[in-house]
Amino acid sequence: MTTRNVIPVIMSGGSGTRLWPLSRRATPKQLLPLTGERTMLQETAGRVCGDGGGVTFERPVLVAGAAHREQIAAQLENLGVAPQALVIEPTGRNTAPVAAVAAGLAAEMGQPEALLLLLPSDHHIRDAAAFRDTVARGARLAEQGRIVTFGIKPSGPETGYGYIRRGAAMGDGFEVAAFREKPDRATAEGYLADGGYYWNAGIFLFRADTVLAEMAAHCPEIRDCALQALRAARRDGAVMALDPQAFGACPSDSFDYAVMEKTAAAAVMPADIGWSDVGSWAALWELSDKDADGNAAHGEVTVIDSANAYVRAEGVKTAVIGLDNVVVVATRDAVLVTSRERAQDVKAVVDALKAEGRDELL
Amino acid sequence: MTTRNVIPVIMSGGSGTRLWPLSRRATPKQLLPLTGERTMLQETAGRVCGDGGGVTFERPVLVAGAAHREQIAAQLENLGVAPQALVIEPTGRNTAPVAAVAAGLAAEMGQPEALLLLLPSDHHIRDAAAFRDTVARGARLAEQGRIVTFGIKPSGPETGYGYIRRGAAMGDGFEVAAFREKPDRATAEGYLADGGYYWNAGIFLFRADTVLAEMAAHCPEIRDCALQALRAARRDGAVMALDPQAFGACPSDSFDYAVMEKTAAAAVMPADIGWSDVGSWAALWELSDKDADGNAAHGEVTVIDSANAYVRAEGVKTAVIGLDNVVVVATRDAVLVTSRERAQDVKAVVDALKAEGRDELL
Repeated sequence: MTTRNVIPVIMSGGSGTRLWPLSRRATPKQLLPLTGERTMLQETAGRVCGDGGGVTFERPVLVAGAAHREQIAAQLENLGVAPQALVIEPTGRNTAPVAAVAAGLAAEMGQPEALLLLLPSDHHIRDAAAFRDTVARGARLAEQGRIVTFGIKPSGPETGYGYIRRGAAMGDGFEVAAFREKPDRATAEGYLADGGYYWNAGIFLFRADTVLAEMAAHCPEIRDCALQALRAARRDGAVMALDPQAFGACPSDSFDYAVMEKTAAAAVMPADIGWSDVGSWAALWELSDKDADGNAAHGEVTVIDSANAYVRAEGVKTAVIGLDNVVVVATRDAVLVTSRERAQDVKAVVDALKAEGRDELL
Repeated sequence: MTTRNVIPVIMSGGSGTRLWPLSRRATPKQLLPLTGERTMLQETAGRVCGDGGGVTFERPVLVAGAAHREQIAAQLENLGVAPQALVIEPTGRNTAPVAAVAAGLAAEMGQPEALLLLLPSDHHIRDAAAFRDTVARGARLAEQGRIVTFGIKPSGPETGYGYIRRGAAMGDGFEVAAFREKPDRATAEGYLADGGYYWNAGIFLFRADTVLAEMAAHCPEIRDCALQALRAARRDGAVMALDPQAFGACPSDSFDYAVMEKTAAAAVMPADIGWSDVGSWAALWELSDKDADGNAAHGEVTVIDSANAYVRAEGVKTAVIGLDNVVVVATRDAVLVTSRERAQDVKAVVDALKAEGRDELL
């Protein structure tokens, strides 16, 4: 069986405000042990390691903000993973420039046709073997010049994700007929009933030269700024600090908008991998081990006469009595209390804190 | 109009575990500013001051545990109140010995017929003028050798209080026909319908010599131990540390059981004074200022799309989203989340912490 070499490009740029008050600017979601003993970054890095299932993962490229450089280095070292590059973004410019930097890096290393797997560091994937298999099957399309996006089969009419409508079959995947922005409820229900739609998971697989060519055609300014920022990067061993001036001049855009929605090379690979973007405390409740009453408790927690609660205490004794479906996240300086249904509305609190300039709580 | 001199005897012995996690052994309920800017002890001391409404309150006697001596002295000084005695209990022995000590102190001061008002330091009384008036009217009965207890007209079928059944009218009050232990719900509803029952508020008014005589008849061991502990007290200015050996030998009993349920001298004075024993966070919600949605918030609190919530944050930013009737009390090391209906069940958490030896949280 052929095995394909893939370079994982792990993006650790998010701030994860949807998991406030645990997730903060200084220690965002991906740097926290939310789904197990390892942090989400460690879980991600551990998933894209080694040889097997038709894929040989090379050492990863990490892309992160300067503020998290030391935490990321320490977490990877703790895991025994030595990244081949730790790319530091002077400012966040969304995911399109990251793709160009990663492709430029591959070219620089003399591997212009290298397969790159661009993936977020803060997603949960239950079935690592199925994930590898999807990468292996996607790689066959990527080798042929396709930019492959992973499509998650919808489990409900979610309004929080972008959707992909599949076109004609191609290998183990499909052409992309269309990308759809986050739909309203009725539209999402239509997509679900139709069966030909996938959630856009934000995981991409492509050849370095493919993406550079497509970006030259569809977003040349992003490509050029990003490559210039890489050329002018300050380098110290594996650490590459992108040039602030060049990267600062780069337009900020997502890989979805800047490339995928414009390119004719897009393909979607259905991915039945137990995916979650862990986008709220309610999503984390879904992923957590629960007691017989459906309560998920982390930390020093006492739950009495309650059901289907998510209770997380970090250094704070937390007691919940007689409440169902409640979400309680307690830290030493901030506490969130809501219901699973309203968990995504933590954004309103974060926005208020921003408006008040309460940086120490963000 | 005759005015009567009354010596307030303020008992600060309780631990107030029903208001965990704010109320702790080190700073129990009465030492906290729960109903306003002043602590409950300060509110109590401020209520039994000065001259007016038919009563002249003399400087108070304070009775408290050794651990709280300095806090109590500071809180009274801050209020400008100089107690005539600060009696320190080496161990808690409930309220009956306190009555004997206070009566012994009055005798020692050459006022064996002094009127003593024995009252807890952790009750809320909305109508201070009505309270004074009740004391003034009760004093007329106490002067005649009655031990007067304040009876609160029930506002609902509460099962958490003892009840007093009134007998024949006597002055502005009534004979006591019977004391009733905390009833079950059906019994409490019967009391309410009957109309001849009062809640026992644990506030007593009597002559010092009356109570010493009644205790000699009904609980001589308590009386003798308490008076011996007073005689052998270590004195330093107004501070009197009761003798540990004598007080330790004293049986522990409430004034209700040891005296009131046995004496023929009991009388009840109906007290329409806006009384609350602030026995739970739900009771405190009742007493609090609320916004248009019925939410009571203290400290750095954000409440969104919620109604009838009690949220108290002490040094911890606390956000509540989309929950009704919730109680949230957050401190830097412990958080309670429950409903108003279940607020009294905080006891289960406190008991568990005791069993686990978590003294730092108690």
